[in-house]
Amino acid sequence: MSEAIDFYFDFSSPYGYLASHLVDEVAARHAREVRWLPYLMGVAMKQTGSRPLTERGPIGVYAMHDFERSARAIGVPYQLPAHFPISGVAPSRAYYWRASQDAEGARALARALYAALFAEGLNIGDPSVVVEVAAASGLNADEVSAGLQDQAVKDRLRAVTEEAIARGVFGSPFFIVDGEAFWGHDRLEQVERWLETGGW
Amino acid sequence: MSEAIDFYFDFSSPYGYLASHLVDEVAARHAREVRWLPYLMGVAMKQTGSRPLTERGPIGVYAMHDFERSARAIGVPYQLPAHFPISGVAPSRAYYWRASQDAEGARALARALYAALFAEGLNIGDPSVVVEVAAASGLNADEVSAGLQDQAVKDRLRAVTEEAIARGVFGSPFFIVDGEAFWGHDRLEQVERWLETGGW
Repeated sequence: MSEAIDFYFDFSSPYGYLASHLVDEVAARHAREVRWLPYLMGVAMKQTGSRPLTERGPIGVYAMHDFERSARAIGVPYQLPAHFPISGVAPSRAYYWRASQDAEGARALARALYAALFAEGLNIGDPSVVVEVAAASGLNADEVSAGLQDQAVKDRLRAVTEEAIARGVFGSPFFIVDGEAFWGHDRLEQVERWLETGGW
Repeated sequence: MSEAIDFYFDFSSPYGYLASHLVDEVAARHAREVRWLPYLMGVAMKQTGSRPLTERGPIGVYAMHDFERSARAIGVPYQLPAHFPISGVAPSRAYYWRASQDAEGARALARALYAALFAEGLNIGDPSVVVEVAAASGLNADEVSAGLQDQAVKDRLRAVTEEAIARGVFGSPFFIVDGEAFWGHDRLEQVERWLETGGW
């Protein structure tokens, strides 16, 4: 019962961003690690026939408001970026490049990228912006640029995305806790209870 | 600030069923009334281009499991009915027919219909089953049958559904609290906090 919690998210997902501010504390309270696993939700959405929330009429209107309200509810800075949705390819590759060197450093980079998008409104779908954000957090710009083109990094992102889909993951955030799947930052309460009780 | 909470739901919605077990207590803790408003979510879904959760591949697999787990989490009996999804027309009409006589009686009938579907697995999409359930809860079968065909009742359901869509309602459950919209039984925590604080 001491397996890591798998935390799947897409860099374009506001609810994934909110979860990134919450999941580590939930896990730490129960002496669990968290495996951060950015993936390309768009690939999964092709299989479920889903479209982005913001493209779904009244659901989009609601979602835009709920993103902000849910961010305020947990005290996290948030604004809908001008470029939205964005492609998660470049930030996800940056994450896996960094993770191949330093797992904690990769999580710090993921946080910096999410903040660049949802707190500062930068378009992290653009690889050059990813490089700037990484450089601002102390990494070497040339190394990051090279990392984004590294075949092993590309393969890793593809493999994580394929494995996510094979495991039934389709949204962001999406948690797997001891084989049990939970979708949405609003399921973290159930995740916490599951960790506390071993399930119900 | 003492307006009723509008509680929109579809009789075919498992999460609406779960919310029907929770919303009155949340409201009562803050001295609010709840206006139960069954509507035809399918009409709203045409506008959002949504399909039922259970018809969406991996989302359906997840949802079936989450319905059960979320029901267990709050101690409510639940099984996925053999006939699912069902049409909410007959149970909704029964509700509005009863509501024209007795608001509390209508809520009791809604609870009985939801229990028939999700605890006992009866197909309440069938008007004759609705009449049986109503009769078992002490109503006159002939009067219920007549009520299901009453033009004023039909018009009321159509009007509530049109008004719901005009207000941006698209899911089940869907709550409107002092003009603020909340979607999902898992937003009741935010609803409660909104009632406590007046918003954030």
